[in-house]
Amino acid sequence: MEWFTEELSGQWRQSLPILSKLVDQKSPFQHIEVYETRDFGRMLVLDGKVQCTERDEAPYHEMLAHVPMLTHPAPKEVLVVGGGDGGTVREALKHPGVERVTLVEIDEQVIEVSRRWLPGLAQGLSDSRLRILTQDAAEAIRTQSPQDVILVDSSDPEGPSEVLFTPRFFQSLKNALKPDGVIALQAGSPFFYPRQIADARGQLEKIFRYVRPYLLPVLTYPGGTWCMIAASDSHDPLRVPARPNFPVRYYCPEIHQGSMARSEF
Amino acid sequence: MEWFTEELSGQWRQSLPILSKLVDQKSPFQHIEVYETRDFGRMLVLDGKVQCTERDEAPYHEMLAHVPMLTHPAPKEVLVVGGGDGGTVREALKHPGVERVTLVEIDEQVIEVSRRWLPGLAQGLSDSRLRILTQDAAEAIRTQSPQDVILVDSSDPEGPSEVLFTPRFFQSLKNALKPDGVIALQAGSPFFYPRQIADARGQLEKIFRYVRPYLLPVLTYPGGTWCMIAASDSHDPLRVPARPNFPVRYYCPEIHQGSMARSEF
Repeated sequence: MEWFTEELSGQWRQSLPILSKLVDQKSPFQHIEVYETRDFGRMLVLDGKVQCTERDEAPYHEMLAHVPMLTHPAPKEVLVVGGGDGGTVREALKHPGVERVTLVEIDEQVIEVSRRWLPGLAQGLSDSRLRILTQDAAEAIRTQSPQDVILVDSSDPEGPSEVLFTPRFFQSLKNALKPDGVIALQAGSPFFYPRQIADARGQLEKIFRYVRPYLLPVLTYPGGTWCMIAASDSHDPLRVPARPNFPVRYYCPEIHQGSMARSEF
Repeated sequence: MEWFTEELSGQWRQSLPILSKLVDQKSPFQHIEVYETRDFGRMLVLDGKVQCTERDEAPYHEMLAHVPMLTHPAPKEVLVVGGGDGGTVREALKHPGVERVTLVEIDEQVIEVSRRWLPGLAQGLSDSRLRILTQDAAEAIRTQSPQDVILVDSSDPEGPSEVLFTPRFFQSLKNALKPDGVIALQAGSPFFYPRQIADARGQLEKIFRYVRPYLLPVLTYPGGTWCMIAASDSHDPLRVPARPNFPVRYYCPEIHQGSMARSEF
């Protein structure tokens, strides 16, 4: 049996058995791999870091989309930054009131790979309400009409996505939002990136009235628990929303509330 | 840098950097190791499996003790099965109404090692309300006076603790409880032991009126998310209890509720 191993900057290694490598290509932006794992379905890996597996992706994509989108009373215009695999877009499109989702993904090869090899994730990518922009996030955000919700599905706060964790980028998110808009972003591991998460939280608190970190389980991420942050000037994400009127596998109001209860942990 | 690696039966490997090995001894029951890790404080390892680290042990011990003990309106007599490191006992003794905690740990070397090398965990082991029995759990349970709460802090449902997941053992727990008593047990990984957890849940449902699996994060356990089960004939663990009137780091009523919301996941 062959094993795939991920190492997180000298702090943690984890490995899982793989059956075969389906994709191995270099885009202008990153190294893209897809593996057939033995126990978790197919797995997308960017620059050596597991992004998701078919088996464990639901909590990640559901919590990134539904926490802010159910905090907002009626989101119609949604912008997704990164997340070319399509999982976050798929969840955003489940909200019946959504009229337009804009996906800004700098690397079109991720989109192509997902369409071909990860159809469960990519299913939202052919929805007629979706518009795909393959361009730099910072640039795209400046030119959008005001959004109800922005979801930042970036890679980690170390490496190429570092720019997506700067005060300048956070301000640009606010500028692209309607006054009562809500954002959410993936913020990294609470165990391995505590300083980066505290920094991001502090910066967001200078810009938004309500800033709520929340936790969720991701089997294949180092340490198994991940942090996201939701923020808004008008709607407190801590307020527990109604039960979603569409199918979900993990998200529910009780988990929404519990996920924010010990964010400092 | 040296790394400690744990492998879960061909399904998962994870590694973390260690500075030194402090304990390496074989008891009549198991191989006991303690490491000084670089990032997580000291770490207890039994038969090659990480039991806890100083840094990440709070959610495990708090959720095992406080979910059932706050489900019970006023626990006085508490039995802890396994858990010779002392972490679960420490949490049980935080409840001001507790008059007696009985720890049944078959391996007294675990207790000795913890007293010497893991003082933060072992601090409860010198409380005057504690009685320690170094004997077989099944035997000890038959001879106890009726308990308000029983906490089963066993190792995983594969290997030497397999007997603690049988219908016969579950029935003996019920026999050792007062009619309105509550039990909780660690049930393993929801990702890697789904069949064993479903079996345990099914068996417990034949014996108890309320059976509630719940989830919690454990950084150093494979997959990072763990399952426990609380059960009772009189008190539904799903009912959200009052906020604890003692210091905790992770447990709170919102997490209590959220932890049970998606146990099937």
